[in-house]
Amino acid sequence: MTISANNPNNKTWLEVPKNSDFPIQNIPFGVFQTQDGVIRIGTRIGNTAIDLGALQQLGYFEDIALSEGAFLGDSLNEFIAHPKEIWTAVRNRIAFIFDVLNETLKARKEHCEEALFDVATIQNLLPAQIGDYTDFFSSKEHATNTGTMFRDPENALLPNWLHIPVGYHGRSSSIVVSGTEIYRPKGQTIAVDAKQPTFGASRLVDFELEMAFITTNANELGDAVAVNDAENHIFGMVLFNDWSARDIQKWEYVPLGPFLGKNFASTISPWIVTMDALEPYRVASPKQEPKPLEYLQQEGDKAFDIKLAVGITPENGQETILSNSNFKYMYWTMAQQLAHHTVNGCNVRAGDMMGSGTISGPTPDSYGSMLELAWRGTKPVKLNDGSERKFINDNDTVTMYAYCENNGVRIGFGKCEGKLLPAK
Amino acid sequence: MTISANNPNNKTWLEVPKNSDFPIQNIPFGVFQTQDGVIRIGTRIGNTAIDLGALQQLGYFEDIALSEGAFLGDSLNEFIAHPKEIWTAVRNRIAFIFDVLNETLKARKEHCEEALFDVATIQNLLPAQIGDYTDFFSSKEHATNTGTMFRDPENALLPNWLHIPVGYHGRSSSIVVSGTEIYRPKGQTIAVDAKQPTFGASRLVDFELEMAFITTNANELGDAVAVNDAENHIFGMVLFNDWSARDIQKWEYVPLGPFLGKNFASTISPWIVTMDALEPYRVASPKQEPKPLEYLQQEGDKAFDIKLAVGITPENGQETILSNSNFKYMYWTMAQQLAHHTVNGCNVRAGDMMGSGTISGPTPDSYGSMLELAWRGTKPVKLNDGSERKFINDNDTVTMYAYCENNGVRIGFGKCEGKLLPAK
Repeated sequence: MTISANNPNNKTWLEVPKNSDFPIQNIPFGVFQTQDGVIRIGTRIGNTAIDLGALQQLGYFEDIALSEGAFLGDSLNEFIAHPKEIWTAVRNRIAFIFDVLNETLKARKEHCEEALFDVATIQNLLPAQIGDYTDFFSSKEHATNTGTMFRDPENALLPNWLHIPVGYHGRSSSIVVSGTEIYRPKGQTIAVDAKQPTFGASRLVDFELEMAFITTNANELGDAVAVNDAENHIFGMVLFNDWSARDIQKWEYVPLGPFLGKNFASTISPWIVTMDALEPYRVASPKQEPKPLEYLQQEGDKAFDIKLAVGITPENGQETILSNSNFKYMYWTMAQQLAHHTVNGCNVRAGDMMGSGTISGPTPDSYGSMLELAWRGTKPVKLNDGSERKFINDNDTVTMYAYCENNGVRIGFGKCEGKLLPAK
Repeated sequence: MTISANNPNNKTWLEVPKNSDFPIQNIPFGVFQTQDGVIRIGTRIGNTAIDLGALQQLGYFEDIALSEGAFLGDSLNEFIAHPKEIWTAVRNRIAFIFDVLNETLKARKEHCEEALFDVATIQNLLPAQIGDYTDFFSSKEHATNTGTMFRDPENALLPNWLHIPVGYHGRSSSIVVSGTEIYRPKGQTIAVDAKQPTFGASRLVDFELEMAFITTNANELGDAVAVNDAENHIFGMVLFNDWSARDIQKWEYVPLGPFLGKNFASTISPWIVTMDALEPYRVASPKQEPKPLEYLQQEGDKAFDIKLAVGITPENGQETILSNSNFKYMYWTMAQQLAHHTVNGCNVRAGDMMGSGTISGPTPDSYGSMLELAWRGTKPVKLNDGSERKFINDNDTVTMYAYCENNGVRIGFGKCEGKLLPAK
């Protein structure tokens, strides 16, 4: 199916500010609450949030094979469970409804009043009910940096890293939407050379600059998803801050992996940008040497050129951008991650989420965590106000940004933001 | 509230075979499908499955503060989200309805026809929609055995083990109910001294004898559950086989923990035995030395005397019981696990599940995995038919059993069973 919604020449009758993340070429999906307390499933164009459940009931999707409840309820899971062709058809239809030359909805004031909302008046909610969340560790630069710091610079990558998109299961319950405030976690840590751990607030809270993808019902238990079919089971992507308490993690994680150092909170951006919308921004992924095993051998360009940035804003202060990275640096692609995840027959469901792992670029100003930017505290980072950071301070707000741009079109993810409150 | 349902003198007008796991003193909760295709939420007494949604609609719970949908839908999550007092009241009421001296339901044939089913005619389904699944590693004997095998017998326990109920996140989507057949997983493994991994079916598929508990909405994000309050947030327990592919896990698990070696399947018994029902079987847990940090210091007996067994049945063969263990051996209690899990503010929801980790006893005939029973393949285990096992063969059925017994009352968990099919 042609993705007519991606046409760079499309224009809309809705107002779209210059450099908006949400031009008519984006059309992401999300869930929001309006001032009357109603939870709505919708999209966003410019600064207008659009209730797709209302549009469906008004007949705007009548000839598309959508279930009755596709845009009702409080999550996108039912819509995501539809076939990929339906996602494409709905997004194309939204582009058509809001096209500058289409007066059908525009001329019906009562329909507009029912379905359109100023984003300043809505509250974004989690877009999907996330069943299982998996976090990968797929940036070679990040894996090399942490291996260099904590183990051996000569053998920074562990033996399995170049063969496996290493991943582990994370916690779904504590995934929150951008804007949610986070408490500094408490837990056990152990001082260098100490024999006994102590209990208290983590001193080393960090962000992790990640992106994540949301899947549909990809396979039944016992079946595998082929690497070159994998993208058909990915609905879209969000920006993702997988907060970390480095000191808690260090003491707990051998041998079974990260646990309380990670599961106190993870923040995602509210609008799921579809794989359709990202299609124009495909690029080649880094060459893989050694060649991976056959089930991981992919054809075509499976990376995406998504520009990333992270800023810290102290309480009542100004933001300092600390890092500029790019999703295209990822060594393992989403297709390889999903193929690997299912190669043992593990079933993946609509609304499951898989994180990329920290996305670090090749240069020190493109690292995706404070751990790397301040190099384990040895090179504190300076903020614009003159203060320094080794990790995140209480009442700092961490904000992540992501956008793609080419052919005069720029689409973005909106903010992924969270403030770190002092320990409770 | 008094747990009148636990009275050892209670008798029921339903037929209960001798040594049934489900006397009137058990009254577990589960979900099942009847031959008409209807999914029902219910309990079991003897060989009778009881539709609690039907009983509620017939007015049998009228004065209990249950939501309308408590026993409708296809999972126990809504009922579990009720306060603990409601769980107790409903279970006490069920004991009363089916008491040998109570003719109210018994005398109404049309009510019995609507609500009672022979268990031979039903199919058990997953009792809860499991949001997040966490697996602990809380048997000291098991941790010592694996540490001895794979690392250093002199320092078998890692430094954190005596301070932390070590745990990690598992996969919810692949948790299946007893009776579901499992495919031998495929994946990457690496031969000893090999430089490159290869791809194929796992050769070292194992069971892990565990129990798991199901929680209610325990806390909001940012709050912690106190160790001595923790049991109030536990609805009940199931028997649990956390299947493992040892060779896949060995190659993948450093540094982020087990992933594809575990997430191909986990099997649970279908009936959740409530903490109320387990109350008479409380015992002291092993002495903890060193004393844990304050947030893990518990009062009173928080272990449970639950006898466990595992058997293997070859295709068309007879069962051999390979291990007899007990849940009371666990070093860390469920209360400590839940307190630890939330001490950083991680939120726990109704329907979440937490596994104990492999439950190994002090003697070789009480180990909870083939890895330990056959000591890494060096001491193959003999079956009754004369064949030997180092791990699980294709078409072997693994069956786990669990029951408590004292004061003349025996309550059990029913089977937790799964057959291992050849790789697909």
